[in-house]
Amino acid sequence: MNEVGLEDLPLRESLRGRSPYGAPQLDVPVRLNTNENPYPPPPELVADVAAGCEEAARELHRYPDRDAVALRTELAAYLTRQTGVPLGVENLWAANGSNEILQQVLQAFGGPGRTALGFVPSYSMHPIISSGTQTDWLEIPRTADFSVDVDAAQLLLKERAPDVTFLTSPNNPTGQSLDPADLALLIDAAPGIVVVDEAYAEFSSHPSATTLLATHGHKLIVSRTMSKAFAFAGGRLGYLAAAPAVVEALLLVRLPYHLSVLTQAAARAALRHADATLGSVALLAAERDRVVPALEAMGHHCVTSDANFVLYGRFADAPRAWRAYLDHGVLIRDVGIPGYLRVTIGTPEENDAFLAAAENVARTELS
Amino acid sequence: MNEVGLEDLPLRESLRGRSPYGAPQLDVPVRLNTNENPYPPPPELVADVAAGCEEAARELHRYPDRDAVALRTELAAYLTRQTGVPLGVENLWAANGSNEILQQVLQAFGGPGRTALGFVPSYSMHPIISSGTQTDWLEIPRTADFSVDVDAAQLLLKERAPDVTFLTSPNNPTGQSLDPADLALLIDAAPGIVVVDEAYAEFSSHPSATTLLATHGHKLIVSRTMSKAFAFAGGRLGYLAAAPAVVEALLLVRLPYHLSVLTQAAARAALRHADATLGSVALLAAERDRVVPALEAMGHHCVTSDANFVLYGRFADAPRAWRAYLDHGVLIRDVGIPGYLRVTIGTPEENDAFLAAAENVARTELS
Repeated sequence: MNEVGLEDLPLRESLRGRSPYGAPQLDVPVRLNTNENPYPPPPELVADVAAGCEEAARELHRYPDRDAVALRTELAAYLTRQTGVPLGVENLWAANGSNEILQQVLQAFGGPGRTALGFVPSYSMHPIISSGTQTDWLEIPRTADFSVDVDAAQLLLKERAPDVTFLTSPNNPTGQSLDPADLALLIDAAPGIVVVDEAYAEFSSHPSATTLLATHGHKLIVSRTMSKAFAFAGGRLGYLAAAPAVVEALLLVRLPYHLSVLTQAAARAALRHADATLGSVALLAAERDRVVPALEAMGHHCVTSDANFVLYGRFADAPRAWRAYLDHGVLIRDVGIPGYLRVTIGTPEENDAFLAAAENVARTELS
Repeated sequence: MNEVGLEDLPLRESLRGRSPYGAPQLDVPVRLNTNENPYPPPPELVADVAAGCEEAARELHRYPDRDAVALRTELAAYLTRQTGVPLGVENLWAANGSNEILQQVLQAFGGPGRTALGFVPSYSMHPIISSGTQTDWLEIPRTADFSVDVDAAQLLLKERAPDVTFLTSPNNPTGQSLDPADLALLIDAAPGIVVVDEAYAEFSSHPSATTLLATHGHKLIVSRTMSKAFAFAGGRLGYLAAAPAVVEALLLVRLPYHLSVLTQAAARAALRHADATLGSVALLAAERDRVVPALEAMGHHCVTSDANFVLYGRFADAPRAWRAYLDHGVLIRDVGIPGYLRVTIGTPEENDAFLAAAENVARTELS
């Protein structure tokens, strides 16, 4: 059977010739490529996760709480505290990473014969998950400085009338946020559901889109993740805040028992340590504000970032520059924007190593 | 926003009026409704899961191995041992429960304009996951004794020509297995991909469909779960064995980083204790062979079962009988087959409680 090739299988036509998604997972000294929080969980969090998993493991033979009520209640309390907007368990939904959250949203509100729209460049999984749910993908280019032209966007949203619109604040991979006032204009203009992807919200100085749920709850979904600021990328926990009816809709498409008892227990343990973990956010913002002028001093252009990464350039040949960084033991990300690369802000030592590499690379690769 | 109703949202038409899937999760003394293994994990397994999770938690800030290579390698070793068929990491794929496995299979080989077919009554998630992936669902009824008429099925498979065919061995909720010789005939007749759902294979006395991979690897997928015999329902780990090209196909549709570091670590710990856990399989089979004649002595008809559950009847009103069991503190499953209920085999004490309830219920509810 090992002689059967992919071309021999009745794969869907739209998948033929495609490659699996994913940043290269390479074993190099300095990994600044996937916007992870560089600080490992503190020992007391590790111990609490282990204790939570041990307790949960005693009931491993039983299915988990299908609706993850305790976890959603605690996510609601965290989000209420972090954004100042009162939210309850009925407003929260959780899944295995924000990718699964977005997939469920598109299964409920997108799908065949429907469209999703994003302002590109943006999170590359939005079109991939749209494709995976058979939702047609539309895109509007950002301006030359990678921001959203809010006036033009309102007209285009009315004209294109997507069923699902993705907004991002801050936007990955470019770093800018959208103010709630602008978000409100865009949500008003969009005829369908609007997902504001706030994966990097804890790093942002702008208010959360949850502040718009009171007025725009009939069409607004705010998605979040514990992968970034929470330093929980390995735990896979994405969530959203929305009107209770949206949560009811997602119950119709979620796979039953999608969240394991271990995921639920570990995420609850991590939430108990939120204050300590999120202490790293200020450190990372300060490091970002050290890295950016250093890059600029080398002649780089840096896109203004409200997150834990920086998009910078311009390189004569970004893929070649990416390889040159790798040769210096520093793994950053080529997100496919001509002339630009993205670096995640790491620890001070990692950033020093990155800047040393950047000095070397800039000599030969800057355009 | 709390006044927004589901009817106010632009939900897909096909989801309107539907209810979320799921067996009632009720807090009653005896729960024999979801085919879980009734034996809690032994203390040494619990300790090993906790230790694995603790080690994994130290790297929670990093994304997991996207391809779960270590876990897949160990699943391959287990399946090689359990079925006698040599399998390697390249033959194995894993996901958050077999539901996610089946969803990925349908995303790759089903979808809009394609069809999936099952022999009903069977696992109720097959049509639900087909619907969730926009795959049209076809069904062929089983015979009066809930078996598959292999001769008729071959003709119907050629005629209906489904893109994906679901076979089940043993079949949930009826309990019968299919022999590899019959499976081979059905796979030969089916023009597309065939999934043999072996969720309950460890309980079965029949050889696994993996024995057919050498001859039928161009169209055969064998799906499995750790939820049942492995007593790992709470850990959510489904997997499949297939030709390497099938695994390559699934890499195109899986959400990146779908399996958390905790899931990978806990499943690996559980696999290290496979022999101890699977020791319960013989106990449960013996209990099944005690429960069946006891039910028959009460006047029940029991469908022959090769798994850890029994479908039995006939009740004048199965939903009313289900409620009567519940009134006796025993939660079993009304799977929607007129006149029948399904009971999971539990511990001897649970089965005694069930049989005592059955005595009472039979007096009034047997047809």
